[in-house]
Amino acid sequence: MTIDRNAPIGVFDSGVGGLTVAREIMRNLPNEKIVYFGDTARVPYGSKSRNTVLRYSRQIVRFLKTQNVKAIVIACNTASALALDTIEQELDLPIIGVVKPGASMAVKATRNNRIGVIATQSTIMSNLYPTLIQERHPEITVFGKACPLFVPLVEEGWTRDPVTEEIAGRYLKELMDKDIDTLILGCTHYPLLRHLLQGVVGEHVTLVNPAYETAQALKRLLRELDLENIENSELQLPEHQFYASDAVEKFRDYAAGILPCEVRSTELVAIENY
Amino acid sequence: MTIDRNAPIGVFDSGVGGLTVAREIMRNLPNEKIVYFGDTARVPYGSKSRNTVLRYSRQIVRFLKTQNVKAIVIACNTASALALDTIEQELDLPIIGVVKPGASMAVKATRNNRIGVIATQSTIMSNLYPTLIQERHPEITVFGKACPLFVPLVEEGWTRDPVTEEIAGRYLKELMDKDIDTLILGCTHYPLLRHLLQGVVGEHVTLVNPAYETAQALKRLLRELDLENIENSELQLPEHQFYASDAVEKFRDYAAGILPCEVRSTELVAIENY
Repeated sequence: MTIDRNAPIGVFDSGVGGLTVAREIMRNLPNEKIVYFGDTARVPYGSKSRNTVLRYSRQIVRFLKTQNVKAIVIACNTASALALDTIEQELDLPIIGVVKPGASMAVKATRNNRIGVIATQSTIMSNLYPTLIQERHPEITVFGKACPLFVPLVEEGWTRDPVTEEIAGRYLKELMDKDIDTLILGCTHYPLLRHLLQGVVGEHVTLVNPAYETAQALKRLLRELDLENIENSELQLPEHQFYASDAVEKFRDYAAGILPCEVRSTELVAIENY
Repeated sequence: MTIDRNAPIGVFDSGVGGLTVAREIMRNLPNEKIVYFGDTARVPYGSKSRNTVLRYSRQIVRFLKTQNVKAIVIACNTASALALDTIEQELDLPIIGVVKPGASMAVKATRNNRIGVIATQSTIMSNLYPTLIQERHPEITVFGKACPLFVPLVEEGWTRDPVTEEIAGRYLKELMDKDIDTLILGCTHYPLLRHLLQGVVGEHVTLVNPAYETAQALKRLLRELDLENIENSELQLPEHQFYASDAVEKFRDYAAGILPCEVRSTELVAIENY
């Protein structure tokens, strides 16, 4: 199969969180056109089982293929942790998740070889962050902690609130007691708490946002496979497309607040049919 | 169509919250067999659109009909508010929700004609509690407030926590400023916060849990239609059945902690196929 290098990149998430990853891709690969899908009808994934998250991810991949994407980015930590390994074996397109880039970045950042990961219940239970890190760096110890209240707190808009600070202090205490010097923000909503979390853990702890490194990994992958877009230019920016499985107006408003581009085309997709 | 009076009652919810309603039915109608469905693969409904909640509810009703239920209880405030009116027109079985019983109970409880409702975003936006109350009692004023953090706080188990108290104080302040004397717990998770909420609003405010009145409404409905079970007796208790769309083990553990009966039969249902 020949892949069209000027085709768009498919990016998906359980909802709006993955827009922070899409934003990094837009900044770092400005010529690439993105087709984003947010599964707002079934959000969140973070407390759901591997089977269910895999079934949902397969449906979304099938949908993205109808959009003729040249590569796919799973911009959701839970889906990356639970579904990527299976889907990459089934798929005839390049696909990456956010977990491996996040793990690499944390390995580079740590100086005392003690890394913390905060994420959803399902991502923590998958144990993928520790597994990936320790496979190559057995000298590093990884401590995980599920923080199920962070996503609803971000969605409530309480990103700089004393209540959120109190909850963060409670969640992070056991990681701080382990003397970590690096903390992976293992859920796409958490970078929106970056400022508050930095205050809680102190300046000596490096916060790792996998979105940055995911955009870099995508750039390297496209270059390697000779799949970089050569059609668009800085003079003619690509028209990104957005799809969601529920409440597209709410999705559009949220996206417009996060992304550096105009959010024009937003359509509803009956994802159960894929 | 003749309905079999010894058939089970279908009860459904977006997840485990509706088990508090199933519990009331078990207590008040001990001869009735329940078939419970929890949509754990797509939970929560509280932030989703009417179209999506209606589509999900229709699939669940189709599934419950394959179980030959004689009546259906929508044990979820959001689905009751967004889907009941449409589904009851389409269905050839008796069906009730939790909103109307909750509204009736609040009307009986208020003395100063000022009622507060706390619920999910979608239930509050539907405006159904105020509409139902004011249709018959225009002299009553109803004040609604969405409390999106309560469900995750209950699921985190922080039902008697100072953080939850602080959040409840913030959510409820605007209702207390309106001098309400009655507060409807318009989401099936909220009764698990009953103790804490009573402390926040004070003893002079009556908390209304629609689950009690829903079981009574079901009892009256079955009697009216001559559909009460005459097969089971106190000597031979009915074997309830439980279905969920994801993570049945987790569901079973949770159900066993809430219900006064043994939770034996729990099965996974691919609800998208209905």
